[in-house]
Order: sequence, then C-alpha cells, then structure tokens
Amino acid sequence: MSWFVGLTMTCPYTVFVQVTILLGSENDKPHAEKISAVLTGFDIPSNIIIASAHKVPEKVVSIIEKLNKDLQPQVVITVVGLSNGLAGVVAGSSLHPVINCPPHKNEQEYLADIHSSLRMPSYVPVMTILNPKNAALAAVKILAESNKELREQVKKNIADTKNRYS
Amino acid sequence: MSWFVGLTMTCPYTVFVQVTILLGSENDKPHAEKISAVLTGFDIPSNIIIASAHKVPEKVVSIIEKLNKDLQPQVVITVVGLSNGLAGVVAGSSLHPVINCPPHKNEQEYLADIHSSLRMPSYVPVMTILNPKNAALAAVKILAESNKELREQVKKNIADTKNRYS
Amino acid sequence: MSWFVGLTMTCPYTVFVQVTILLGSENDKPHAEKISAVLTGFDIPSNIIIASAHKVPEKVVSIIEKLNKDLQPQVVITVVGLSNGLAGVVAGSSLHPVINCPPHKNEQEYLADIHSSLRMPSYVPVMTILNPKNAALAAVKILAESNKELREQVKKNIADTKNRYS
Amino acid sequence: MSWFVGLTMTCPYTVFVQVTILLGSENDKPHAEKISAVLTGFDIPSNIIIASAHKVPEKVVSIIEKLNKDLQPQVVITVVGLSNGLAGVVAGSSLHPVINCPPHKNEQEYLADIHSSLRMPSYVPVMTILNPKNAALAAVKILAESNKELREQVKKNIADTKNRYS
Amino acid sequence: MSWFVGLTMTCPYTVFVQVTILLGSENDKPHAEKISAVLTGFDIPSNIIIASAHKVPEKVVSIIEKLNKDLQPQVVITVVGLSNGLAGVVAGSSLHPVINCPPHKNEQEYLADIHSSLRMPSYVPVMTILNPKNAALAAVKILAESNKELREQVKKNIADTKNRYS
Amino acid sequence: MSWFVGLTMTCPYTVFVQVTILLGSENDKPHAEKISAVLTGFDIPSNIIIASAHKVPEKVVSIIEKLNKDLQPQVVITVVGLSNGLAGVVAGSSLHPVINCPPHKNEQEYLADIHSSLRMPSYVPVMTILNPKNAALAAVKILAESNKELREQVKKNIADTKNRYS
Amino acid sequence: MSWFVGLTMTCPYTVFVQVTILLGSENDKPHAEKISAVLTGFDIPSNIIIASAHKVPEKVVSIIEKLNKDLQPQVVITVVGLSNGLAGVVAGSSLHPVINCPPHKNEQEYLADIHSSLRMPSYVPVMTILNPKNAALAAVKILAESNKELREQVKKNIADTKNRYS
Amino acid sequence: MSWFVGLTMTCPYTVFVQVTILLGSENDKPHAEKISAVLTGFDIPSNIIIASAHKVPEKVVSIIEKLNKDLQPQVVITVVGLSNGLAGVVAGSSLHPVINCPPHKNEQEYLADIHSSLRMPSYVPVMTILNPKNAALAAVKILAESNKELREQVKKNIADTKNRYS
Repeated sequence: MSWFVGLTMTCPYTVFVQVTILLGSENDKPHAEKISAVLTGFDIPSNIIIASAHKVPEKVVSIIEKLNKDLQPQVVITVVGLSNGLAGVVAGSSLHPVINCPPHKNEQEYLADIHSSLRMPSYVPVMTILNPKNAALAAVKILAESNKELREQVKKNIADTKNRYS
Repeated sequence: MSWFVGLTMTCPYTVFVQVTILLGSENDKPHAEKISAVLTGFDIPSNIIIASAHKVPEKVVSIIEKLNKDLQPQVVITVVGLSNGLAGVVAGSSLHPVINCPPHKNEQEYLADIHSSLRMPSYVPVMTILNPKNAALAAVKILAESNKELREQVKKNIADTKNRYS
Repeated sequence: MSWFVGLTMTCPYTVFVQVTILLGSENDKPHAEKISAVLTGFDIPSNIIIASAHKVPEKVVSIIEKLNKDLQPQVVITVVGLSNGLAGVVAGSSLHPVINCPPHKNEQEYLADIHSSLRMPSYVPVMTILNPKNAALAAVKILAESNKELREQVKKNIADTKNRYS
Repeated sequence: MSWFVGLTMTCPYTVFVQVTILLGSENDKPHAEKISAVLTGFDIPSNIIIASAHKVPEKVVSIIEKLNKDLQPQVVITVVGLSNGLAGVVAGSSLHPVINCPPHKNEQEYLADIHSSLRMPSYVPVMTILNPKNAALAAVKILAESNKELREQVKKNIADTKNRYS
Repeated sequence: MSWFVGLTMTCPYTVFVQVTILLGSENDKPHAEKISAVLTGFDIPSNIIIASAHKVPEKVVSIIEKLNKDLQPQVVITVVGLSNGLAGVVAGSSLHPVINCPPHKNEQEYLADIHSSLRMPSYVPVMTILNPKNAALAAVKILAESNKELREQVKKNIADTKNRYS
Repeated sequence: MSWFVGLTMTCPYTVFVQVTILLGSENDKPHAEKISAVLTGFDIPSNIIIASAHKVPEKVVSIIEKLNKDLQPQVVITVVGLSNGLAGVVAGSSLHPVINCPPHKNEQEYLADIHSSLRMPSYVPVMTILNPKNAALAAVKILAESNKELREQVKKNIADTKNRYS
Repeated sequence: MSWFVGLTMTCPYTVFVQVTILLGSENDKPHAEKISAVLTGFDIPSNIIIASAHKVPEKVVSIIEKLNKDLQPQVVITVVGLSNGLAGVVAGSSLHPVINCPPHKNEQEYLADIHSSLRMPSYVPVMTILNPKNAALAAVKILAESNKELREQVKKNIADTKNRYS
Repeated sequence: MSWFVGLTMTCPYTVFVQVTILLGSENDKPHAEKISAVLTGFDIPSNIIIASAHKVPEKVVSIIEKLNKDLQPQVVITVVGLSNGLAGVVAGSSLHPVINCPPHKNEQEYLADIHSSLRMPSYVPVMTILNPKNAALAAVKILAESNKELREQVKKNIADTKNRYS
C-alpha cells in the first residue's frame, strides 16, 4: 500500500497544493484565467504574476528564488506570446515542474512562435501544452501524484469525458 | 512545515516512484534510453514498453488501465515518431501525468511531425519536451514534488548547471 | 467477362454497400454531412459515429471489431481535426479501406495539422483526401469495383463533369 | 450472407484483380517496385507504366481510356515527384479508385511537394498515402472488398502485425 | 540595324500579337480579367478559355495543338488555384512561352499552393509570376521583342513608373 | 500569313537573338553554365555578367541601360541566391523580358529563399523558373516568337521529349 | 572619463543626430510614422523618403551617396514590404548603420516575406527588427553611443519600462 | 563641421570603442570568433563571455549592469542557438545597441529557430543579422558614427567590395 494514502486524509490538499501562473504581459491575462478557472474547479488555488523575462529578468529571478523556498507540492505555468523567453528562464532555475502554455491567437501565431517554446537546450525542462484547459489538467495530474483526494477527482474527470462519448 | 517531509525519510523514494516509457516502435529505443539513463542518475527506476496506438490500441488501453491501478507517484513518458497517436491516446485516459518526447532525428522531421504532438483537443493533456534529458528532468521534478530526497537532488542538479557557467 | 456482372443485377447494391463515417468530435458533423450528402446522391447509405481515439480508444477498438465482422463491401471514412489520432488507429486494425478527410477550416489549420494525417508508419494505410466531395467520390469508386450499377453512376458522374467544360 | 462469397471461391482473384502503377518518370521505378513487391506478396499482379502528365498528357488520356474499359476490380496507383500533375489528371477521368504515393526522398522534398498531391479541386478524388507499403496495403483492402480470399489475407496481415507487439 | 524595325511599321502589331489566358475554373475569371485589362491598355487582344487539366485533359491537349499551329507571336498565361496541373501540362507541349499566374487569395493559399507551380521537371518551362499586372507586363515585354511599336509602349511604361518616384 | 516568316529565312537568327545571364556572385557560375549549355544547343549566344544589386547597384543600373539600347530580340536571365535583390532591380527597369532562375542547392534553401524571387510589387515583372534547363528553354520559346528557324527547333525539342515516353 | 561627455553639453544632440527612413512604397508611410513618432519622443529629427530599389535603383544610389557625405551621427531605417530589395541595396553601400523594419500586416505576410530581409550575402549588413517602436529604440541606442544626453534618455526609458512591472 | 572630428584625432578609437560578444553556450565559440576576427581587422577589441539566459539569468543581469556603467561607445552582440532567450533579455536592459547573430548550422535550424530571435515585444530592440561577418560590419558602422578614423575604414571596406565587381 502506498505511504501517502493515510496522510492526505488528514491533510486536505487544498491547503497544500498550488499553481503559480507567470505571464509575460498583462494582455495575456484572459488566457491565464482559462487555466485558473479549471484549477478552481478542482479547488486548487492559483496565483497570476506578470513578469517579462525580456524586460525584468531580475524580477523573474527573484520570483523563482521565492518559489524554490516554498516546499509544498506545486506547479509553475508560464504564459508568454511572441518569442518565449520566460518559460526557459523559469524552467532553468525552478525546483518545481514548469508547464508552458503559449497564448497563440490563431494558427498563424502558432506557426511562427511555437518553436521558441520548444527548442530548449538541455537542463531547461519546459513542458509545452497548447490548450489552456489541458495545461490546467496536466498540473492537476502532477499534483494528484501526492494527493489521494485530487487523484479521485482526476479519475472522475476522465470517466466523465468518456461518458460524453457513450 | 510540509506533511511529506517526515514520511519520505522512512520511505526511501526509490521504492515508490517510477517512470514508464511507452514507445511506438522498437526503433526508438535508443531515444528512450537517453531518458532512462538520466532517470537512473537520480536512482529512479524506469520501464520501457513498446505499444503502437495505431497498430495495437487494445494493448495501449490495457497498459493504461494497469498503470491507473498503480497508486505510487509516477510519470508516463511517450516516445513516438511520425504522426503521434500514442501520446494523445495515453494522456486521454491516464491518471498519471504524461510527458511526450518525440524522437525527431533532425529539424526536417521536427518541422513535419511536431504538430501531431502539440495539437491536442481538450481533455488530452500531453506535455511535450524535445530534448530527452529535459524530458527526464521534468519527470524528476514532478516526482520530487512528493519526495524530499529527490528534491534535494534536483536542487543540486540546478546548482551544478549554474556552476558550469561561473 | 467479369464474374460480378450478372450477380449485381439480381443483388441491387443499395442493400449491400455502405460507408461508415467516424468523427473525433460532434463539432465536425457538418463536414461529415457534406460527405454523406454526396453518398446519398449515389444511393449509398452512410452512418455517422462519434468516437475520439484520444478520449475513448476502447470504443474505437470495439467499433472496428464490429465493422470487421461485417462482410459486405464497405468503406470507412475518418473525419478528425487537430492532431489526427483516429485515422491511424482505425486504419491499423480495419479490414476495410480507410479514407481520411480532415475538416480543416482554412489553410492555416491545414498547414499545421495535415502532417498528422499523412505521416503514418507502415501497416497503417490511411488514404487522405481534403475535399469532402472527393472523399465521398473516392468511396463510391471503391464500392463500384464490386458493383456494376454503381460503376455506371461513376461513369455518368465523370461524363457530366467533363460536359461542364465543353 | 454476402453474395460474393461463393463466387470468389470458384473465381480465384488472381485472375480478376490487378493494380496499375503509373509513374511520371523512369527514376521513380524503385519506389514503384516497393509497392509492387507488397502486392506480389498478396498474389496481386501489378503493371508499371511511365507517362508524364506534363510531357505526354495525350498518352495519359489514352491509358485512362483503356483502363476505364477494363471491368475487373482494380486500383490505379500514381507515383510522381515534384509538382504532381499526374495524380489529378488520372483521378479526374478514371472509373477506378486512384491512390497517390509520391516518392519523396526526405522530409525536405515532402514539405515542398506534398501540397501538389493534396490540394485537389472537387471531382478529382486523389487518395494520398506516403509509405509505399501502405499504398499497396490500401489497394489490397480495396480489392478485398470484392474478394473473400483476399480478405482472409488482409485479416492475417493485421493479425501478424498485432502479434509483433505482443 | 535590326531587321524587324521596318517591318512592324507596315504591320501594326495589334493584328499579329495575342495572349491566350487558360483558366482551370470559372471562379478565377476576375483574376484573369486583371491580366487582360492591362493587356488591353497595350492594345493587345486576349482570349480567356476555361479548361481544367485535371478534369478535361483531352480538351487542354486539343487547345495546345490548335495554338501550336498558330504562328503569330503570342504568349499563353495559365491561371490555376490549388494544385496546379494546368501550367505544366500546357508548358510541356506548347510551342509558345507559358507564363503562370496563380490566383492565390491570400498568403495562406500562397504558402500552400505555390510549390505546385514551381517544382516542375525538366522540359516543362513554366514561368511563374504572382502579381497579375506583372504577368501581363511580362507578356507585353515578350511580345515587344518582335514589335517596335510595343517596345516603345514598354519604354514609356517604365519611364512613367520611374516618374511616380521623382 | 505571318510577316516574319520570309524575313528570318534571309536573316539567320544566330546573328540576332541573344541571352544575357546576370549573376549576383561568382559562386553561381556553375548554375549559369547549365543554362548557357542548353542555349548553346540551340545556337543561341549567351553572356554571363556578375553584378550584385546589393553591392554594386550602380553597375546593375548601367548594365540595364546598355541592354535597353540593344534592340535585337533578347532575354535577360538572373541567377541569384539568398535574398534575391537582383531580379527585381533588373525587371523593374529592363525593356527585355526577365527570367529569374535562383540557384538553390537543396529544398532547404528553396523553402527559405524562393519568396524573395516571387513576392514582387507591381511594375516588377520577374518570371521565375527553378530548373536551369527550363529557364533556358523558356528563353528559347520567347526568342522563337520572332524567329521561324528557332521555332522549328522548339517543335523538334518537344517532339523528342514526347518520343522518350512512347 | 569619456571624451565625449563635455562636448555634447555644448553641442545639443538635436542639432547633430538624425534618422533617415527609406520606404519602398507610399503605402508604408503609416508604418514609418510609428517609427518617427518614437524618435520625436527622443527629440531626434527623422526624414521619410520614398524610393523603390526595384523601380528606381538610380534614385536609391543617389540617396545613399548623399547620406554618405553627411558626417553627423545618423542611422538609416528601411521599411519595405514583399521581397525586400531596398534594405540590401542600402546596406551594401551606406557608411551609416542600416536598420530594416519590414511592415508585415500579419503573421502570414511575415512567414512569406521575412526571409528576403534576413538572407543577405556578406558585406551587406542589414539589421532586422520587426516592431517599429523597437526599430526606433535601437536607432536611439546607436545614436546615444555618441551623445550623453540621449544616453540619459535611454536609461530613463529602460527604467520606466521596468517600473511598469513592479 | 561635425564636433567629433577634431576630438577623435587626439583620441585614437582603439582606446575607446569595444564589442562584447555574449554566448549562450561554449559550443558557439567558433561562430563568435568569425565575428571577432572581422572586428580585429578593424582594430576593434572584442570580448567573448558565455552566459545562458535560461540557465544563469542572474549572471546575465549582472553582466548587463556592468556594461551599462561603461560609458565608452560600444556594441553588444548575442550569439545563441535554439530558442533565443539571451538576445531579448540583454536588449531589454542594455543601454548599448544589441545585435543578435544566431549560429544556425543550416537552413533547417534557421527555419525552426529564427522566429525566437525576431518576434520580440516592444521595448526589446534586438537587431538580427544572420551572417557573422555582417554582424561585425554592422557593429563597426555603429561605432564609426562616433569615430572619424573608423569611418574611413568603413568607407574603404565598401570601396574594396565594389572594386571586386568591376
């Protein structure tokens, strides 16, 4: 039997897990809110912070340092359009897993900008997902690895999706 | 103080965490082994299974079902060339987080095939990483969210990388 | 003289041939209906079924098994947007020929998504056609190989097309 | 029970089915031979003819006319590099189904040339497959719709493929 | 002194030169009319004919044969969208120079379809120009090589263009 | 009957027609020589001149001025790699028709550089052909519009090509 | 201490620095005005001149000659759509640094046209920037290398940008 | 007469101007050395520093701060492969002009990676040049704006280039 089962029963995850959503620009807030809405549906608190790697790298550095000191299970999600500097800067220094969800408005932007999210050097583990609902869902699955209650919700979410096809 | 600290001290993570690497084809084993080599460096056991979604979807379905019953913290990594059917099939049904690491031999293959890894519908949370070392490192960070010892190793890995630039 | 001539005269094809149109999503129904409309013009019955390979692979597997037991001449047409998992999953296991007709809304989607329809491994014979009328017409030609009456209709269709240019 | 079962038992299909492979250039013969090799494995006779739509359209027109008079179950496969004029010219006038299998030497050629195979106007039903083995297998499935013996071979081929993954 | 100077003075070119515009589809007439409007400005007669290489190759063949018998100085311009079969079929057999002016509605169509106009095998000399005014102007320059009066008009056209920048 | 027939009999075209091949760089001479070799096969004299529009625009301007004063039937062919400035600079000011034949070494260069040859503003009639043999053949067809003897050679060239397919 | 400090105090830079914006077409004026608006904010005078390299290369040559005689610190910015001939023609002969800011209306135009701005041969130093505000800012930084007052403004501009993120 | 003429005569520029070349990876040193070799030809000192924005953003921040305090005329050149985070991070905070020269090994890498260099948000003025010799030459022209002696060298360099075409 897995060790974490009993634990999480006395430690409701809503206290312990969290997601930080880092934005390169104020303009991408609607995209970030699609992510946080799904997280809220799983009772996972999220926090949106705006900090461009190109314009205020020193601010990004200090945000990462702060998150690295925070030991509770968590995920960082970056939301950056155009050339994606932020996801790599965060993933290179963050202790926590980094999901990248670029806010392309259409396939044109996607075809021009996606490469800046993907073509990372080694030691810069950025995980890219296009669909904001999927980015949230991936974060939930990551957090569910250390939380039994959350895992049950994931199980239900998958079952509900399958049921819509029956 | 986080709940999981004391626990993992008495439950060494090497017993509990694991990574399953799913391959679409025998030919992609060298790529998968680059991933498992990094995991081994973190003392994380990994298991390579070959199962094409296009050719044996029923086998993929049964692998996912089996993994879904396995409650210990874990990550699934898919390695598939050409049109990527496997990553989506796995991510749609897996309780565990799914990292996708397509084995493109060069930028030509990348430019043709990457879209099949990325353009997923909602409820199919595939997280894509190109570099196999980064795919491993992302898995490690995910598992470290529920394991203090592993987190120390991640911390050291980041520090070592930074030191190479000083 | 070919063996099938006399036979089909006593066995009107409308009883024997059929087309199954598999959709990844409810949203693609209008695209599928462009295909079935042409088939109806040839008096060929068609059946639209929704089943995402990414979300309900087990349902897709069971649909293929059922179609494989059905011995009358027939064609399967898949209609899937974004990354095309369905066409390959069906073509890998289906006894019947599989035509794939992705519902791209514009050239942008086409340029991003077409590769997931084309880049199939061996033993996964997906035949791709963009134009839904052409997908239907190709299915008709396939079915006409075993049906004299249908062949006459194909002959007339080609002649009518040529006449519009005289 | 389907009408064609008894018939094909007394009419071995090797007499009745056939595949014509049309090439735009002598240089593409090795690609065509990969297709005919698979067909031979199914005891299906194939015939390679060289006829460029760009250089000798009148020859292509007369080949199609001849094939259109040939009533036995059959498939036409076009193999053309660079800008693909042949597949469309054949598919527009052929009574028989037309599979197109362009002989791209690498992904570079594929990215430049695939669109000329796909972007067909209505009434020009070209079915495109990249892998020559798959093109042959698709032709076999089409012919198997009117031939019980061939269908058994297709069934075996799929089962054999699945067995390689068990 | 060039031989043709005296001649053209007694043989006004409007009798002798001409342009034939071949269209793959009725829908491309507005594009063709942009070309013929410029030609009319140079008093060059043009003739629009609709004939799809994919659908009525035999008609295209007979049009080329007729134009090949017509010895007066002339140019053929093809206007075809999607996969361009017509330009190559015409250029392979035409004695006269063939300019190809594909009617792309936007850059999306251009990026998908231009390759089918350019990637021609040897002995198929298709000359591609995107801008319909430029296609007309190129035809005028070609015809002006054998017509002094027309050459003066070309000279004036270039001078007028330069004057707009002074 | 056309006016030029009798004339060219007493005025052998080899005296009158010519092709000027303009190169952006010494390195592209082998490509230019593939063009001039075909022209030589038609007894058409050609002249290779090196003059980069980017580096010595004043030299290009003076070459065009000189060619514009030369009244005999002729064609200018530009051969330029990378970003193509030369073709447009020449076509904007040249009285004579301008064929552009970029010397791409492979499909990679083609995919990056072809657009600079094609995307010309109005009043800049650049006619693009990829294959150097075709560029020569197009020039021959243009010159044959004012030369009966050359036209016979074109006729023979087309017939020879067709014969290779019989 | 740097030599230029005292000097610029008695020689206000607004007298000495300048930017020349060269346009290929009247239509691109709105794009050029976005650049000059930013320059005006730094009190840097700018001058918009229209001169197509394709249509009036002789005019472009004479503009460069004139600018080359002008010894005060300055920058040339080219603004050209479609195939970019102007930037290279200017950069090859200009003594002054040349920034290129192509006026793409959307990502479609960008994907087709950007290569003509970038793929320059050696000795043609074109510096490309997409965003017109950035093009202006880069020009300001260049001019600030020889002007203390301007440098203070650059410093303030960077600080203001950072402050918007605090 | 310009103010800086007399000054630079008594202040040889080799004391005052400099170029800093920032590399994302040790592997890109050969590319950087192509740049510094050209600079050396102009007697301009250059300094190569390795500092990945993704891995050590704090180091990049401190390098920029140091360069910003250095008031002599200078240029920063960034050399980064894959997704280009460095150029933007530097350009956003640097007082000095930033030229970006990505070390693509071939057109494949170029087509995948160039967008990460170009698609910068406002206030991040990165000037991109592909050819390393051109990057150096652009830096020289920038520095020559405040140095008479260097400007003479630029003048000679342009004249020498032109002479190679005469």
